[in-house]
Amino acid sequence: MIEEKGILFVLSGPSGVGKGTVRRELFEQDNELKYSISMTTRDRREGETEGVDYFYKSREEFEQLIEDKQLLEYAQFVNNYYGTPRKYVEETLAAGHDVFLEIEVQGALQVKENFPEGVFIFLFPPSLEELKTRIVSRGTESQDLVLKRLREARNEIEMMDAYDYVVVNDRVESAVEKIQSIIQSEHCKRDRIAKQYKKLLEDEM
Amino acid sequence: MIEEKGILFVLSGPSGVGKGTVRRELFEQDNELKYSISMTTRDRREGETEGVDYFYKSREEFEQLIEDKQLLEYAQFVNNYYGTPRKYVEETLAAGHDVFLEIEVQGALQVKENFPEGVFIFLFPPSLEELKTRIVSRGTESQDLVLKRLREARNEIEMMDAYDYVVVNDRVESAVEKIQSIIQSEHCKRDRIAKQYKKLLEDEM
Repeated sequence: MIEEKGILFVLSGPSGVGKGTVRRELFEQDNELKYSISMTTRDRREGETEGVDYFYKSREEFEQLIEDKQLLEYAQFVNNYYGTPRKYVEETLAAGHDVFLEIEVQGALQVKENFPEGVFIFLFPPSLEELKTRIVSRGTESQDLVLKRLREARNEIEMMDAYDYVVVNDRVESAVEKIQSIIQSEHCKRDRIAKQYKKLLEDEM
Repeated sequence: MIEEKGILFVLSGPSGVGKGTVRRELFEQDNELKYSISMTTRDRREGETEGVDYFYKSREEFEQLIEDKQLLEYAQFVNNYYGTPRKYVEETLAAGHDVFLEIEVQGALQVKENFPEGVFIFLFPPSLEELKTRIVSRGTESQDLVLKRLREARNEIEMMDAYDYVVVNDRVESAVEKIQSIIQSEHCKRDRIAKQYKKLLEDEM
């Protein structure tokens, strides 16, 4: 039987680019995607559910999981750990569901290191698009401001290098549509599909 | 200024798979795509227009173009040459339009050789999908028929290896939707976009 394994999609980008808005709109339109559930050492709050909002762990448990390389990424904020458990992601993919992880750039780079088979999407601020227009219609902007924007753009472009796709967040609906296209087309990638069919043939002949 | 170059998309697959139907439906829905116009040595027929239906060439002109490597692929049928002129494709891409070429497998492999930066989509017959179901619900099919279908499937899978994407033509609308996703997501590929932005920065800083 052909196993249609899920794919891990990682959405990231500079802070303020609108990752959360795009992710929420995407999840409203796509009921097949599973959101990656984080693990944390912070206390469970009123109304939160284990395995839905977070997986709750003690500090000792979390540090053991770090040591066992069971986190695709983690970070510490205000004395608590937060991270992405490998086990939940792998089990969800194995069950045939795509997993979607929205995360800042530093975390995405950790995931890339620990789970390179993921598909990494960089949400790009529309400012470079604006910049494009600005540079074209030169003279209306002071040289200093153009240079400042070019420096910012250069930093963002350096960050892009680890990613598979770049989506400009000019309009939320347009960004969501592009991400949906990426999800659908990744499932059509020959190297994914051919491997499955070949495995099928080897198993059966 | 950022040059948004077009992309050459090549749709191919075994004969009888429904390439023409899928291509026609795709063109009804997408007015941005330019169809690759073939070159031929056969006579122009009533109602046909140079540069719309075909580019018409003499045998000598065509053979000179072959020698000058000006054809992405060509073949002879009934004493006439047919081929895909490189110049038309490159000029259309340079003008920012995607070019779409629907062609049989042998021609697609020639294009791949001569224009590897194209995106190659293999339209897959739904039979392997059926096969999948058949193998799963074993016992309802004679062993011989299963083996025959597996051999066919194996041949088709070997052909797939030169392609970037595989789209199963189970329903025309679904195949067209997948091809549209591939077109959109290819335009979001980081290596395409980052190169353009980097060039912009190098030119301007």
